Amino acid sequence: MAKIETKIKEMGLYLPEPMPTLGGMELPFPWVRVHGRRVLISGHGPQNPDGTLAQPLGKVGAEVTLEQAQDSAKLVGLSILASLKRELGDLDRVTRWLKFLGMVNSAPGFNRQPTVINGFTNLIIDLYGKERGAHARSAVGMAQLPMDIPVEIEGEVEID
Amino acid sequence: MAKIETKIKEMGLYLPEPMPTLGGMELPFPWVRVHGRRVLISGHGPQNPDGTLAQPLGKVGAEVTLEQAQDSAKLVGLSILASLKRELGDLDRVTRWLKFLGMVNSAPGFNRQPTVINGFTNLIIDLYGKERGAHARSAVGMAQLPMDIPVEIEGEVEID
Amino acid sequence: MAKIETKIKEMGLYLPEPMPTLGGMELPFPWVRVHGRRVLISGHGPQNPDGTLAQPLGKVGAEVTLEQAQDSAKLVGLSILASLKRELGDLDRVTRWLKFLGMVNSAPGFNRQPTVINGFTNLIIDLYGKERGAHARSAVGMAQLPMDIPVEIEGEVEID
Repeated sequence: MAKIETKIKEMGLYLPEPMPTLGGMELPFPWVRVHGRRVLISGHGPQNPDGTLAQPLGKVGAEVTLEQAQDSAKLVGLSILASLKRELGDLDRVTRWLKFLGMVNSAPGFNRQPTVINGFTNLIIDLYGKERGAHARSAVGMAQLPMDIPVEIEGEVEID
Repeated sequence: MAKIETKIKEMGLYLPEPMPTLGGMELPFPWVRVHGRRVLISGHGPQNPDGTLAQPLGKVGAEVTLEQAQDSAKLVGLSILASLKRELGDLDRVTRWLKFLGMVNSAPGFNRQPTVINGFTNLIIDLYGKERGAHARSAVGMAQLPMDIPVEIEGEVEID
Repeated sequence: MAKIETKIKEMGLYLPEPMPTLGGMELPFPWVRVHGRRVLISGHGPQNPDGTLAQPLGKVGAEVTLEQAQDSAKLVGLSILASLKRELGDLDRVTRWLKFLGMVNSAPGFNRQPTVINGFTNLIIDLYGKERGAHARSAVGMAQLPMDIPVEIEGEVEID
């Protein structure tokens, strides 16, 4: 098995199934858009192994705690990795993580978005190492996110 | 006439005039920045044919309904196409749509941002087809948008 | 001294020191990610000369006035320039400013985000000139920003 996938397994983590759509309807956009060596990644949310949205839902700082939100950001990382795996066939093809925007569904007064998004960043560094996995990023507070997910992340990686 | 523009006309749609500025002041930023084959697109809002902001304004889920917001997202697509036309001369030069960020001015509790942004995505797919028009995207809820527009969209396309 | 840095000095402005971290902890992400000729820039906030966060903090339209927010956006520009200087050695290496996302911590009803972000855009144009400094941009209203900063900006430039 490829190296990155082996690590994911060894860490006791999973790559979720594709998100089920209502009545099997096709989404009008791709989760990942490959353009030469650039891979553009749509905003992803946290998923259970079967692809459904992972609980808890709601605003961080209200219904969702800081620790739960960090877990959620880590799950978003796994959702992104699962989409990359489906598109690229092999996660080892990702040569560099480049830039990510971490969006946190934020209750009034909650201002620790970077700590939340560290759940994502630390996963990527653990898997890809410091040089390959490093990414420019922002971590900011949204008024609302689709289906009340606590965290959504989009970005770009490079492939060989 | 170029193919994409012909389609826009046949669909009964229009490319709006440039947005009028207060006292004819020059904006400090370009609506579109061409960089080699990359075309970087500033955040656009919905416009009437004469370039003024299209009604309704306000938050989706409060002053603006879901259906109105979808129409608004479609108008934002036409604003972007109009800017591309002015910069590139011909919309057929766009070879690939790549990545877009759809920002919805969201009332508390409104969580259907992807349905809103489908108004934009479906227009682009109708015009450019599934392979050329497909784009990675996020659809998220903002606290406020400039001049209370309900939808703002930014992104990137490739030209030949 | 390099040209851009000389101009910054002549304008009576400063490049801030790196932001101090709690207990000297290393941040899990880089402020700037260089990838060939692309330079991807993490979300930056306004800083004092010693690298600490610049006052005032809070929401624009409530605790922070429009004028203060414009100053804040200008300081964010200097934070970005300071990170670029540390990474690239010389600010003259930046050949083109490309695309920026200006995020304004917005109180309910505040809808002048573009005027705020002009504080950043005007600085860059003053320093790099109209052709080299022009950038596609969005200026939008966030629900919350990290540590209650009033403005955060991320983006991309090209180097030679």
